[in-house]
Amino acid sequence: MTERKEFRDLAPPEDAHDAIASLDLGGGTETVPLREARGRVLAERVDAELDVPGFDRASMDGYAVRARDTFGADEADPAHLDLVGEVHAGAEPDVTVTEGTAAEISTGAVMPPGADSVVMVEKTDESDDGDEVLVRTALAPGDSVMLAGADVAAGERTLGPGTELTPREIGLLSALGVDEVPVRAKPRVGIISTGDELVRPGADLNSDAGQIYDVNSYTTATAVEEAGGEAVLYPHAGDDYEEMEDILTEAASECDLVLSSGSTSASAVDVIYRVIEERGELLLHGVAVKPGKPMLIGRLDAGDSPSAYVGLPGYPVSALTIFRTFVAPAIREAAGLPEPRTATVDGRMAVEERYGEGRRRLMPVGLVEDAAGDTLVYPVDKGSGATTSLVEADGIVEVPAETEYLAADESVTVQLFSPDVRAPSLYAVGEDDPALSRLLDRLDRPRYLSLGTREGLRRLRNGVPDAAVAAGDPEVAADHEDLGGWTREWGLVVSEDNPEDVSGVADLVDRELRLINRGTNSGLRTALDDAVDSLADERGTARRDLADAIDGYDLTVKAHESPARKVLAGDADAGLGLRATAAKLGLGFVSLGVQDVRVLANPDRTEKSGVEALADTVDDAESVLSALPGYRPE
Amino acid sequence: MTERKEFRDLAPPEDAHDAIASLDLGGGTETVPLREARGRVLAERVDAELDVPGFDRASMDGYAVRARDTFGADEADPAHLDLVGEVHAGAEPDVTVTEGTAAEISTGAVMPPGADSVVMVEKTDESDDGDEVLVRTALAPGDSVMLAGADVAAGERTLGPGTELTPREIGLLSALGVDEVPVRAKPRVGIISTGDELVRPGADLNSDAGQIYDVNSYTTATAVEEAGGEAVLYPHAGDDYEEMEDILTEAASECDLVLSSGSTSASAVDVIYRVIEERGELLLHGVAVKPGKPMLIGRLDAGDSPSAYVGLPGYPVSALTIFRTFVAPAIREAAGLPEPRTATVDGRMAVEERYGEGRRRLMPVGLVEDAAGDTLVYPVDKGSGATTSLVEADGIVEVPAETEYLAADESVTVQLFSPDVRAPSLYAVGEDDPALSRLLDRLDRPRYLSLGTREGLRRLRNGVPDAAVAAGDPEVAADHEDLGGWTREWGLVVSEDNPEDVSGVADLVDRELRLINRGTNSGLRTALDDAVDSLADERGTARRDLADAIDGYDLTVKAHESPARKVLAGDADAGLGLRATAAKLGLGFVSLGVQDVRVLANPDRTEKSGVEALADTVDDAESVLSALPGYRPE
Repeated sequence: MTERKEFRDLAPPEDAHDAIASLDLGGGTETVPLREARGRVLAERVDAELDVPGFDRASMDGYAVRARDTFGADEADPAHLDLVGEVHAGAEPDVTVTEGTAAEISTGAVMPPGADSVVMVEKTDESDDGDEVLVRTALAPGDSVMLAGADVAAGERTLGPGTELTPREIGLLSALGVDEVPVRAKPRVGIISTGDELVRPGADLNSDAGQIYDVNSYTTATAVEEAGGEAVLYPHAGDDYEEMEDILTEAASECDLVLSSGSTSASAVDVIYRVIEERGELLLHGVAVKPGKPMLIGRLDAGDSPSAYVGLPGYPVSALTIFRTFVAPAIREAAGLPEPRTATVDGRMAVEERYGEGRRRLMPVGLVEDAAGDTLVYPVDKGSGATTSLVEADGIVEVPAETEYLAADESVTVQLFSPDVRAPSLYAVGEDDPALSRLLDRLDRPRYLSLGTREGLRRLRNGVPDAAVAAGDPEVAADHEDLGGWTREWGLVVSEDNPEDVSGVADLVDRELRLINRGTNSGLRTALDDAVDSLADERGTARRDLADAIDGYDLTVKAHESPARKVLAGDADAGLGLRATAAKLGLGFVSLGVQDVRVLANPDRTEKSGVEALADTVDDAESVLSALPGYRPE
Repeated sequence: MTERKEFRDLAPPEDAHDAIASLDLGGGTETVPLREARGRVLAERVDAELDVPGFDRASMDGYAVRARDTFGADEADPAHLDLVGEVHAGAEPDVTVTEGTAAEISTGAVMPPGADSVVMVEKTDESDDGDEVLVRTALAPGDSVMLAGADVAAGERTLGPGTELTPREIGLLSALGVDEVPVRAKPRVGIISTGDELVRPGADLNSDAGQIYDVNSYTTATAVEEAGGEAVLYPHAGDDYEEMEDILTEAASECDLVLSSGSTSASAVDVIYRVIEERGELLLHGVAVKPGKPMLIGRLDAGDSPSAYVGLPGYPVSALTIFRTFVAPAIREAAGLPEPRTATVDGRMAVEERYGEGRRRLMPVGLVEDAAGDTLVYPVDKGSGATTSLVEADGIVEVPAETEYLAADESVTVQLFSPDVRAPSLYAVGEDDPALSRLLDRLDRPRYLSLGTREGLRRLRNGVPDAAVAAGDPEVAADHEDLGGWTREWGLVVSEDNPEDVSGVADLVDRELRLINRGTNSGLRTALDDAVDSLADERGTARRDLADAIDGYDLTVKAHESPARKVLAGDADAGLGLRATAAKLGLGFVSLGVQDVRVLANPDRTEKSGVEALADTVDDAESVLSALPGYRPE
């Protein structure tokens, strides 16, 4: 086995850019129908092959005449011309205008032979018998006539190579009669995810065997397309050398670039590493940028010309970060596309961020707008989980290795994960609540993080979110404006018809019942803690003693439905939860009380339209609350 | 025939917006594969249907243990645990961890029954015989374990309706195993161009019959797609009532919205007008906005539900202007898409623009960046021709009816014709020259308007373009920096082998030869005028007399190849042109001289990167010049 060099000599980030730039990502030419050319980039200059218009063209409705026949004509003394016919747009003239004659003509029609100008209909009268036209103005040759080629002349340069084709360029090419255009080929990018545990979305998942859905394949494929490449998904590869070799070789023979990502397991990385070394060339292994340690750059042999290869980290935000920073620019370059103007946004740090790793950091960040519409930027840490942080993070801020901290209010530039990413209209944090979830549906692009009441209030104190949602009766140390709220009935969710006949907290303490609890950030947990406190007071003991007596008191799960779902799955006798959840899942419910849910705005953001919309929604919550058992307006 | 109400009572623009808003443009829901969902908009909230991860998961490579077995362990006094097996990612554990035992585990693997924590491999040693693991740290339950649902918990709100799907949202949905997503349907927009004279690109064009290529169909279709709609092209309709009725009815039955555009002929507009009145309902005819006079808004009957109808002006820039202002926002709204952040750009007027029509104006404008990167905005008039102005104009500035003029430096907001439009890297105006055309190919997105030497110098004096290109020896009144240039040989392009034996200007005067000339803006024309002057001096007569004696002296065409192409087509005996053009087209050439071509920069823009690139390209013109007969470096 090849010795692993990983993590010893991390390459400077500039070397990674150079290594990728040294690879050939395609950049050929293909011909596409004009109708499908939107967003493509012209590969060659297009010169006009014909005149536009292709004929001398009347630019007014009126009469085609010989200008010299109108010499001296005016309102009082019109020129009398014999009407010899008419010419319509789209028809070949079947009339010749000779001295003393005129032909009726429509805008866009071909000038008939002999005529050199058009008099607009408003400056004429027809004689009563229709045989004559009276021209009440004098014309010069060329009046109201557009000469052939006056718009675009054959041989003229019209569009240069590198032009991105938007509607107007498509229009210009239409005018030239072009129906196929030579454009830069899209780099073909093969995507392979590695790891025995991955299953593609839509397939069955065996959680007992540790399977998880493959996140990076679709994310990366979408990002490749966004950068102007064509993504090809290959079957995922396990840790087997031969399987990996087969798939990488197949992808290399069909694609300009092969990207692998997915596995966090060291053995899968080892296997890829060996395949690249043996079936290609490894240019670089590990980049001195956080999170660039596991990055690989190399070539894979493939028939005539080698394919480029880049290995991305397995953690989804890291994979997207490395893709955004190193790979997307190379794909765009090969496709001839400029970086979108919306690829970055300027803002200022909402909080201080300390950093001292001595390695350049690509820091995942979220965006929030203040009341004036200025962009504030805050770090998103991995704590929220691989998947959740994927949608929490809007982009990355590059922090130089020598930077020890970013001060609050410091200006930063955010490299967005997608040019379509924008700051949410509302950023709120707090309790997980089904009524709130429905109310959020009414808002335009809100971001709500269900991290619990405590975390919501903690973040509100830091001034970053627009609002926090608190359940129970917590002490709110943060300045806030109360936007209103509702009450919800909480208790123990049990199996249908309560077969164990659970009647309250005392049963949990005194009987052999298994509970699933919520975490201490949750307002529901605080309510249960208080109930245990009361029981402890009654019994003259300490809360901790009673809690220790409850099987599963410290077994906490994340979301409001999670304990109930454990009960439904038969994994527990009781779960901390809401009457609404029990009703939704068809479970039994033992009521332990009613608690407030309050929506609290950041006082600096009350003028922000997203906060105003939230306030309106809370005011108008009646229909949502009445549909949820155990909910009441305040 | 219904009486035409057109152009009598123009509706206020707000009424046009309201009328379009009153129409139903679809907005239904459809299900698409996740893999194809990029850029689509979620139609419904997506709650997690499963826990992510779906099992308690090791988050480190190491050993799965019972935390209580490591109590008190440290570097000096490790806990000794019996190694009972191993668990890999993607495999079901076949081992149970009981008191005093441990199982080797990989990152991502399922925690085996009995274990409650993972010790990282760096804090352990295996015994020499491999039967035991020595744990050199004390653990708490849950250490290095991610509980099922800790990332996303079943029942949690994950994405709300209205969310635009970018790579990260696709990633989140992948993690949830979702492979089909409910998205907002794209409004289906039928496009009909009207007018007997239109031919679709790619088909044969009969210029003698006044046919022209259809510009608006493809332009509008592309703009519809850019706004998030699905475009359906219908065969173009002529001025025949029944044909028009059939096509409009077919489109209405298949689409949410029907757009017509194209004809400038009054009769085609009349026919559409009648069809809408008789087969639907006309809501509005003519909007008090320049160029909104010909706009129609209505409904077309179609089975169950009527289709919306909007008639666009025929002039391409006007069609795009009205589409951008009134139709695109409605399509985006129906598709659930926000206006792109790049849909507008702020700038300041490069020149004063007077206006006094008393009607709101949607003024087509071009963009140019100054040396500091600020955006300058200048009006683009129709003078340049329907097709040319389509690519000259980057967007529109809305000028209120009561505004009499926009001052130079006044701030304006430009509604771009496409979110992908950006200011060119270089904006230059001047002589049409084949060497220049090739040099421009080396630049990134230049805009060059071949309007002739005089117009180039005039605009350079106004300070708007970055550079002008002048041929001949014109008086340059504008401040400028000379970036260099070359010389080109000019003269008369004649048929192959010069069958008429043309030898110079005197032949044109003295013999019955037909000439095709260039316009007075052209540097070539100035050279010919000078040659005629010399001959007039020789002969002691006036230039005008000689010019009058030349058949076709006043017959001018637009581009540098145009006269030669007339000669090639047999329409003339001689054309003013270049040796390079004669060589390219295989024609004869009578040399009349050599003239300078100079590239002159706007002195305020010499620091601009596009101008620097132009200067470099001119310095490095050797290879281009040597490939063109009659060209020489300066």
